[in-house]
Amino acid sequence: MAVIKYKDFTIKEKPYYEPVGKEIQLFEAAYDSKRPVALVGPTGCGKTQLASFMAYSIASRNKEKKFPYIEIPCNEDVTERHLLGGMGVDGKWHPGPLYTLAKTGGMLVLDEIVEARKDVTVLLHPLTDDRRYLPVTRKGEVLTPPDDFMVVVCYNPGYQVRNKNLKPSTRQRFVTIEMDYPNAELETKIVVNKTNVDYEVADKFVRFANLIREARTTDMVQLQEGASTRLLIMASELYLKNQEKNMGLSLEDIARGTILNPITSEETDREVMSDFLSQL
Amino acid sequence: MAVIKYKDFTIKEKPYYEPVGKEIQLFEAAYDSKRPVALVGPTGCGKTQLASFMAYSIASRNKEKKFPYIEIPCNEDVTERHLLGGMGVDGKWHPGPLYTLAKTGGMLVLDEIVEARKDVTVLLHPLTDDRRYLPVTRKGEVLTPPDDFMVVVCYNPGYQVRNKNLKPSTRQRFVTIEMDYPNAELETKIVVNKTNVDYEVADKFVRFANLIREARTTDMVQLQEGASTRLLIMASELYLKNQEKNMGLSLEDIARGTILNPITSEETDREVMSDFLSQL
Amino acid sequence: MAVIKYKDFTIKEKPYYEPVGKEIQLFEAAYDSKRPVALVGPTGCGKTQLASFMAYSIASRNKEKKFPYIEIPCNEDVTERHLLGGMGVDGKWHPGPLYTLAKTGGMLVLDEIVEARKDVTVLLHPLTDDRRYLPVTRKGEVLTPPDDFMVVVCYNPGYQVRNKNLKPSTRQRFVTIEMDYPNAELETKIVVNKTNVDYEVADKFVRFANLIREARTTDMVQLQEGASTRLLIMASELYLKNQEKNMGLSLEDIARGTILNPITSEETDREVMSDFLSQL
Amino acid sequence: MAVIKYKDFTIKEKPYYEPVGKEIQLFEAAYDSKRPVALVGPTGCGKTQLASFMAYSIASRNKEKKFPYIEIPCNEDVTERHLLGGMGVDGKWHPGPLYTLAKTGGMLVLDEIVEARKDVTVLLHPLTDDRRYLPVTRKGEVLTPPDDFMVVVCYNPGYQVRNKNLKPSTRQRFVTIEMDYPNAELETKIVVNKTNVDYEVADKFVRFANLIREARTTDMVQLQEGASTRLLIMASELYLKNQEKNMGLSLEDIARGTILNPITSEETDREVMSDFLSQL
Amino acid sequence: MAVIKYKDFTIKEKPYYEPVGKEIQLFEAAYDSKRPVALVGPTGCGKTQLASFMAYSIASRNKEKKFPYIEIPCNEDVTERHLLGGMGVDGKWHPGPLYTLAKTGGMLVLDEIVEARKDVTVLLHPLTDDRRYLPVTRKGEVLTPPDDFMVVVCYNPGYQVRNKNLKPSTRQRFVTIEMDYPNAELETKIVVNKTNVDYEVADKFVRFANLIREARTTDMVQLQEGASTRLLIMASELYLKNQEKNMGLSLEDIARGTILNPITSEETDREVMSDFLSQL
Amino acid sequence: MAVIKYKDFTIKEKPYYEPVGKEIQLFEAAYDSKRPVALVGPTGCGKTQLASFMAYSIASRNKEKKFPYIEIPCNEDVTERHLLGGMGVDGKWHPGPLYTLAKTGGMLVLDEIVEARKDVTVLLHPLTDDRRYLPVTRKGEVLTPPDDFMVVVCYNPGYQVRNKNLKPSTRQRFVTIEMDYPNAELETKIVVNKTNVDYEVADKFVRFANLIREARTTDMVQLQEGASTRLLIMASELYLKNQEKNMGLSLEDIARGTILNPITSEETDREVMSDFLSQL
Repeated sequence: MAVIKYKDFTIKEKPYYEPVGKEIQLFEAAYDSKRPVALVGPTGCGKTQLASFMAYSIASRNKEKKFPYIEIPCNEDVTERHLLGGMGVDGKWHPGPLYTLAKTGGMLVLDEIVEARKDVTVLLHPLTDDRRYLPVTRKGEVLTPPDDFMVVVCYNPGYQVRNKNLKPSTRQRFVTIEMDYPNAELETKIVVNKTNVDYEVADKFVRFANLIREARTTDMVQLQEGASTRLLIMASELYLKNQEKNMGLSLEDIARGTILNPITSEETDREVMSDFLSQL
Repeated sequence: MAVIKYKDFTIKEKPYYEPVGKEIQLFEAAYDSKRPVALVGPTGCGKTQLASFMAYSIASRNKEKKFPYIEIPCNEDVTERHLLGGMGVDGKWHPGPLYTLAKTGGMLVLDEIVEARKDVTVLLHPLTDDRRYLPVTRKGEVLTPPDDFMVVVCYNPGYQVRNKNLKPSTRQRFVTIEMDYPNAELETKIVVNKTNVDYEVADKFVRFANLIREARTTDMVQLQEGASTRLLIMASELYLKNQEKNMGLSLEDIARGTILNPITSEETDREVMSDFLSQL
Repeated sequence: MAVIKYKDFTIKEKPYYEPVGKEIQLFEAAYDSKRPVALVGPTGCGKTQLASFMAYSIASRNKEKKFPYIEIPCNEDVTERHLLGGMGVDGKWHPGPLYTLAKTGGMLVLDEIVEARKDVTVLLHPLTDDRRYLPVTRKGEVLTPPDDFMVVVCYNPGYQVRNKNLKPSTRQRFVTIEMDYPNAELETKIVVNKTNVDYEVADKFVRFANLIREARTTDMVQLQEGASTRLLIMASELYLKNQEKNMGLSLEDIARGTILNPITSEETDREVMSDFLSQL
Repeated sequence: MAVIKYKDFTIKEKPYYEPVGKEIQLFEAAYDSKRPVALVGPTGCGKTQLASFMAYSIASRNKEKKFPYIEIPCNEDVTERHLLGGMGVDGKWHPGPLYTLAKTGGMLVLDEIVEARKDVTVLLHPLTDDRRYLPVTRKGEVLTPPDDFMVVVCYNPGYQVRNKNLKPSTRQRFVTIEMDYPNAELETKIVVNKTNVDYEVADKFVRFANLIREARTTDMVQLQEGASTRLLIMASELYLKNQEKNMGLSLEDIARGTILNPITSEETDREVMSDFLSQL
Repeated sequence: MAVIKYKDFTIKEKPYYEPVGKEIQLFEAAYDSKRPVALVGPTGCGKTQLASFMAYSIASRNKEKKFPYIEIPCNEDVTERHLLGGMGVDGKWHPGPLYTLAKTGGMLVLDEIVEARKDVTVLLHPLTDDRRYLPVTRKGEVLTPPDDFMVVVCYNPGYQVRNKNLKPSTRQRFVTIEMDYPNAELETKIVVNKTNVDYEVADKFVRFANLIREARTTDMVQLQEGASTRLLIMASELYLKNQEKNMGLSLEDIARGTILNPITSEETDREVMSDFLSQL
Repeated sequence: MAVIKYKDFTIKEKPYYEPVGKEIQLFEAAYDSKRPVALVGPTGCGKTQLASFMAYSIASRNKEKKFPYIEIPCNEDVTERHLLGGMGVDGKWHPGPLYTLAKTGGMLVLDEIVEARKDVTVLLHPLTDDRRYLPVTRKGEVLTPPDDFMVVVCYNPGYQVRNKNLKPSTRQRFVTIEMDYPNAELETKIVVNKTNVDYEVADKFVRFANLIREARTTDMVQLQEGASTRLLIMASELYLKNQEKNMGLSLEDIARGTILNPITSEETDREVMSDFLSQL
């Protein structure tokens, strides 16, 4: 176990990432224009993978200077104080990740931004004007971040429709990249590369996922979301462990525990998907 | 009474657990793949029994190193600060159970996770990525837990349907094991083994429970949940005490106090179930 | 006035309690099995009377060791911190009643538990498993209470129906005793024994209460609850004071001030009940 | 201006109070039986007048010992901590009025109790059992108040009907006295005695109030409440000042500013009541 | 810029105020009777103007003693602690404006009282009884304010109708003065006197305001409120600046920016009012 | 990176601003009359651009004295304490931006004021009366700001319609300037001047934006807001980077990532707008 300070936390190994479209170029153009980026797409389609890949890539440009990477999972309890920092009971300023990176540079990823409280998103507004500065009310200060400071937000547009969403005045500040699951061939390649599982096994899991995704699109099942690439990687990992240790789990046992069960507990949908399983 | 520090609290005696399917192997494969596990099923079907059984079993692999086990019952007031820790009025860091175990290793069980506030579940997201790390905003640190650190969550899918549920982006990170009540024979065996009650008595309680469960499935009674195995164990314990001390309670008195009454106070349902009682 | 520390607060005089069914034996069997008890019934039917009676009785078994009794009226503001304790501004641990009794033993009564916040009830879950322990997150400790530690909860199933109720996973951990008002004869006996009022007077008050209860059951009046035994005891006390001091209050004045008025302010129901009064 | 400590604040001058029925005897019988009292009736009908009158009268019984009187106007922000006290930042216990009087004796009046948060009313439950004690969770103590400690609550049943009300388990602990506005003759007498205004003037104001009250009862106007006796006293006071200083206000000017305007701003109701004014 | 302590903040120059009816006498009679005053009327009709005028006038009676004037704009976050004061982290008492003035005397104006939280209004109840005292729970004290202490509240009855309002038990404690916009002639006089603008210009703005007010009364436009006198003063001020600096703004430009735009952003209502503009 | 204290943060370079109407004169007349200004219009139409332009222009009048400029993005968590300041745990006063500027002079811009909590807007009321002062309850002080202190608020009337809005008593204190997107010619000029992009490219982006705005006005698409000028500037910046670094992004790629995607994730609206794209 290691305890690493924010300013020292960088992406050290090149993350594996397969581009689907021109997302890498668009991300880079945004970074070069000092504009923030929004990554938009379904659960587990690779949003934070892309962010960390880009952080590695940007860090590689200038090896003299650290380029920290911090990912904050947003939620209703992530407040301005959380991100920016606050005065502690010791009377000292305790900087949050936004404050730290706005001083040193680096990439701040706010995952699931639509779950955040309003003040968090609003906080980003003056940072994304031309003037690009950060008022720190509690310190009576204004920060003007270095050129290599970048904010990335991720969200799932499917969730956003309902009761939580970003205001237009927030959305219209981000270069926005729409992402989706890769096609079957690419997804199989990704699963194989990430886990070293056999191509045939990966292919089976990908086909199972695609059956589920189609059933969802055609309203055959009532799922909030389809199977993510992450689940297929998880399935492959367990498959390999099972082989290695000879645990006696069948492919179906694994697909059930890592793909079907994590998707829903609803009985009728489970039956439909169980039928798909038997087709593997 | 003993006061035991979190890092020293381990499962010392082997818990009694009867597997229903391949839940033990699936759990083990998940642990070996450093993936978190979700245990899903009705009240009192043995979710935390399985977790503590597995904690004992994992601890047995390496007796040199402690493998702490902490179970946190979740609810709306369990916050990030609660789990992760926070700065005290003394200006020192007071680590929570998640922080403690993410440093030392061990199994953290979040029971009834669907009752938790959003920030608790979101906190687990970066822990369950490939990179497996834990940002601790309040300390400006990132933790990378040891290999023997594992998160287990439990929930009841029946509750989840209504207003509280886990987001797909949370669910799709856990190897998910669906559990249910054992069949009559196995349940009787469990009750006998746990309490040393006579087979005939255990059998009566199990039959009573199954009558209730059926009545619920067929909507003959309007129960939120059926009778749990835990209640049958409780009934058997009181039965034995009554015998030992000659207290004058009838089998029906006991079944009423330990099985029927804990299930509902609704009058018409109580009458239906009272009829079952007289059939014992 | 006396200030008594929690650990020294015991029931010193035997409370008067008339059993209606086998509630005493069931309570005892639960205590002997180290199971918690739920007392369920309408306002003022004697739930906390039974609890304190049992506390006295359990304390009598072993006069060497103190058996503290603490009754906490629950409500939305009774939190985990309230019951368990917390770190004070002085940086010291301030134990709550649950923490104190889980260390020393004794009976903790949580009255009106359905009014409590969720975290309070969930707190009790690990205490009522076989393993019977209490995680104290804020101290990073686990407590394993002594054998003579017992939790009792009370609630009114009538209230519970609406928006507040206990989750099945909570209910199905308690030996549950359903209680109700005693029959007329027994209730008159109780009133006479508690207050030393004449049998005829007690009988009149009991008859008045039963007319109200019947009118409620038959929807003749719209009362949330009927008249409790506690009100009849209160009526008798005022009757005796009135006699002793020659205050000039009629039986009707007293019944109005102690039974009718405390039940409702709704005009039409008051008229119906006033008619009953004139029949005394 | 004087700053008086709670324990020294007593009613020094005999308050003027005209009994309407047997409320004084009933109050006294409750005090002598160590039972709490609830005063129930419309705004400004004299509830706190009666309470302070009784406090004076009880204090007169034993001039050796102080009998403090504290009146707390309840609302959603009056919490347990407010009434009972709490640990300050200085690490010392800061007693609230309930704690103070439960130690020294005296009368605590909780005005508008239905506006209070639930925890305040529940706090009173163990105080009103036979055992009569007060658990102070934050201190780990139990208080047993002296015999001359009394709790009085006031509320308006008209408000209670809607969304806020006392639970039956709270109501059924209080000797409950229903109060109303006095009849015209008595009310005129009260106004004259309180203010020394001429009988004819008081009579006019009382007649105006009664026209309003009748119009309300017959739904001629839509008022939440009728004119209170307090308003008539206020009108008489201004009438006298106007006479003394020759200010040039007419009787109608005064009645409008002190009776009509304080009742409603609704235009059509104001017109109806203005007609009554011209009849004075 | 000056920083002035509350106890030293007095109205030093005589505010300009034109009475519409007998509001000055009624206010004075209330002050002399030690009764609080409520000023009720639409936005910008002069409520706080009257209050400060009266504060000046009362202060002039006795030049030996300071008569501080404090105006607090109420809202949901103005709490008891805010008004009364509280213990600071330094362990000292930090008095709020109500506490300060209840000790020294002076006029406390609570503007927009209907926006305040309930505890603020309830706080005033014992202050407005005959006994006139202020319990300070957090200090365990009771204050009895000097004769020259006065509370004034302001509100807009139009807002009150909807979800926020004062309880009758609060309203029926205040001498209540209903205020409205002055008639055209008086309003023009006021505007001229306040700003020194030409009569013809003031007259045009007043006529424009009256067209809007009428359109609102006849539901020709859907405005929450009509144009306030304050807006007309603002318009005249800008008119004079425009003249002085030769800025090139037309009368219509000014009327639009200072009267029409501040009233609504709703398109159809804006068109109707634009027509009125062209009639100037 | 620079850390600049509030009182030293001034607009040093002249912001580029193209007036659409007489907004500059109206703003100036308001400043000269010591009246606050409200800027009202859709997202990204230049509200804060105008404010900073005016701040620069006002600062240029008197180069001897600093004229600080602070822009606070409002939201539900911006409280009175936030703006005004508060006592820290160190027992010292920590001034907020409103307090700081009310002392030193300068322009405070409250962006998105309708998102703020009520107490923030109400705080401004006494500042905008003739008397122009600021009560600081927590310090027991009243501030009277210098003549060069100015408050500017911005909001979007489109958002306001729904559940959040300013009260008339707040609105009717501000000189209010309604703003909108410039016409096509002017907008193209602005985009070219801000970014140095070719006229033809800017023209294409502007035409795309106007197609979207029209589609929105005619309900062809269901957008909360149309495309802002800010988005067109962002598009041009990325276009230039793409040219400079030869990244291989097409005009459509850029328009999608910077204009279409930031506006909506809704599928059918995206298709309509994609058609517009192909017309570029």
